[in-house]
Amino acid sequence: MIRTGFPDFGPTLEEVGEQGVIEAIVSAAPSAINGDDAAVFTPAAPNSRVVASTDMLVGGRHFSPEYSTPFHVGKKAVVQNYADIEAMGARPIAALLAISAPPSMPVAVIEELARGVGEMTDAWSSELVGGDVTSGKELVISVTAIGSLGGNLDALRLDRARPGQRVVAHGKLGYSAAGLALLQSGKEIPERFEPLVHAHQCPEITPGRGVVARSAGATAMTDNSDGLIKDFGTMARRSEVGIDLSSVALSPDRLLVEAGHFLDVDPWEWVLCGGEDHTLIGTCDRSAPVGFRSIGTVTRQPGVRIDGDEPKYTGGWESFG
Amino acid sequence: MIRTGFPDFGPTLEEVGEQGVIEAIVSAAPSAINGDDAAVFTPAAPNSRVVASTDMLVGGRHFSPEYSTPFHVGKKAVVQNYADIEAMGARPIAALLAISAPPSMPVAVIEELARGVGEMTDAWSSELVGGDVTSGKELVISVTAIGSLGGNLDALRLDRARPGQRVVAHGKLGYSAAGLALLQSGKEIPERFEPLVHAHQCPEITPGRGVVARSAGATAMTDNSDGLIKDFGTMARRSEVGIDLSSVALSPDRLLVEAGHFLDVDPWEWVLCGGEDHTLIGTCDRSAPVGFRSIGTVTRQPGVRIDGDEPKYTGGWESFG
Repeated sequence: MIRTGFPDFGPTLEEVGEQGVIEAIVSAAPSAINGDDAAVFTPAAPNSRVVASTDMLVGGRHFSPEYSTPFHVGKKAVVQNYADIEAMGARPIAALLAISAPPSMPVAVIEELARGVGEMTDAWSSELVGGDVTSGKELVISVTAIGSLGGNLDALRLDRARPGQRVVAHGKLGYSAAGLALLQSGKEIPERFEPLVHAHQCPEITPGRGVVARSAGATAMTDNSDGLIKDFGTMARRSEVGIDLSSVALSPDRLLVEAGHFLDVDPWEWVLCGGEDHTLIGTCDRSAPVGFRSIGTVTRQPGVRIDGDEPKYTGGWESFG
Repeated sequence: MIRTGFPDFGPTLEEVGEQGVIEAIVSAAPSAINGDDAAVFTPAAPNSRVVASTDMLVGGRHFSPEYSTPFHVGKKAVVQNYADIEAMGARPIAALLAISAPPSMPVAVIEELARGVGEMTDAWSSELVGGDVTSGKELVISVTAIGSLGGNLDALRLDRARPGQRVVAHGKLGYSAAGLALLQSGKEIPERFEPLVHAHQCPEITPGRGVVARSAGATAMTDNSDGLIKDFGTMARRSEVGIDLSSVALSPDRLLVEAGHFLDVDPWEWVLCGGEDHTLIGTCDRSAPVGFRSIGTVTRQPGVRIDGDEPKYTGGWESFG
C-alpha cells in the first residue's frame, strides 16, 4: 500500500510549546544519554576513531506531503546520513536531529517524523542522542550522524580507487528515481510498482555493509545519493582514475523496464542519473565483499564510461538547480 | 563601530551552483579532513569519550540583517554550540555546518558567514570538518559541535548540583539582551554601549573554561542560553535541588545600568531573563575555578531564588512563543 500525506489535526507546535515538542520527540525515540547540553558517548571499540556527517532536508524540495509521510521523512533522514557513515566503512552509533517548523504545524507531524527516526536508529542499534527545535517558515530537518571506525584499517575514501580494482555495488540502483517519477506522474500507480515507490519514500540499506566491505578489502566507497554517474565521477576525479561500468551488470531489472513502459521513460535514465538510492558503491582489490556485486573495473583513463563508451545519460542532483 | 547588514551584491548561489558554494565555504574555513562522505577524526586524548551537540539558527528569528552581519552569525553559530560542549567540561574539536538558503542569495553572504565560522573554529584549535548546502525559502543554519572528554572525571551534567555547593559563573550576564534591546530601540546607539551590542552580535566566551571547571571540581554546568533564571531552573529541577543566587553578585554593572536609563528599562530584566550570553554557569564543591566567580549557593528548597526570595523577573526564550 502506498501511503502519503502529513497529519493535519491535533494540537500545534505553538500550543504544546518547545518542551512539549521535545517530549514528543524523546518519547518516540528515547535515549538514556539525551537531555543535557551535549550527549556523551563512549565508542564500543577501544582506540576507535570518530566519524561524523550531516545532511539537511527541506520540505517541498527533498520531500513533500504529496509523495510521503512524516514517518518516511524521518526514516529517510537517518538512512541518508547513516549511508554516509557506512560509506566510510564505519558503524553508525548516534544521530542528532535539529528541526525548524512553522508554529502552526500539528505536533503529530513531528511525532510521526520522530517515530521514523527512532525506527531507523534502532535498526542500527544506535540512538537519537540530542537535537534542537525551533520555529521557521518551512519544515527543515537536519540530521547529524556519528559513527565509530574501529581497528587499524583506513577509512573507505573517495580518493582511494586504484586502476585494476573491481567496482562493486550493494543494493538497488534507479529504484528511488523510478518511484519519484511514478508519484509525480499523477497516474494511478499499479500495485506491482510499490517497491519502487517505497524505495523513493525511504530507501532501505542493510546495516553493517560498509563495515563488511572495509574488512573485505574495499578501499574506496561512497553512496549513490546524487546520481550514479555523478557520484562515480566524483570518485574517479578524486582518485585520479577512470571507472568503466558494465552495461550487463547495470541493466535495468524487469520492474524498472515495466515502469519505463508505463511512463514512457527510458529506465536507463533512472539507473544512471537517479540518486537517493543510497546504495553503497565502491572499489576493492579482491572479490566483491559479501552482499556486493561486481559492476565494473577501475581504469587509468579519466572519467566514467559504460563498456568503454560515454554514458547515455549523465545528469544528477544539483542543490541550487 | 557597530556593523550590521548582509551583502547584496555579486553572484548568487544559483549562479555559482552547489560546488561553487562548497568551495566558498571550504576556502573560508579549510580543513584537511573535510570533503569525503563523512569526516574522520582522532580524539587527541587516549580513552576519551565523544561529546556532540547541535543547534539550528533561523534567519529573522535568531538573527537579522538589521542587527548583525553574516560574519557575526557564523561566529555566533559556533560559539553557542561550543558553549554546550564546554558546559560538559569537554574540549570542542570539530564543527559541521548545514545551510539552507534561497537560490537568489548572494554567495558573498555564505562566504562571510563561513569566515565567521572559521574564525571561531580556529579560536578553539578545532576545524570545520563537513556539512551540507541546499536551497530553501529562508536562511537556516545548523551547526553540530563535536567535543572530546578526556580523562576519567565525569562530564559536567545538569543533574549534578548538590546542596551546599557553591554556584559559579564565568563571563557577562545580560549583555546580549541589553545589546539586542539597544538595536531594537531604533535609537542612535552611543559609542559607550558598543560592548553590549557586540555581545549580542557575537558573545565571546573563553576557550577551555569548561575543561578548567571540570578539573577544578565542578559537578554541574550549563550555559546561559535561554535566560539565567530559566537555565538555573532547569538545573535545579534536574538535580532536585534549589539554587539561591546573590543579588550583590548579580547586580548589573555600570554599563547595564546606563543602558537601562537610556532605554528606560530595568537592567535586572536583562540579567535575569536575557539568554544568549552563553556564559558558563555551574556548581562546585570547592572554591570557584580560575576565571569563575561565586554567585550563590545550592540549597535543598526547590526552585531558583535571589537572596532567598522569588526573582523579580523569570521569563526567557521559548522556541514556539
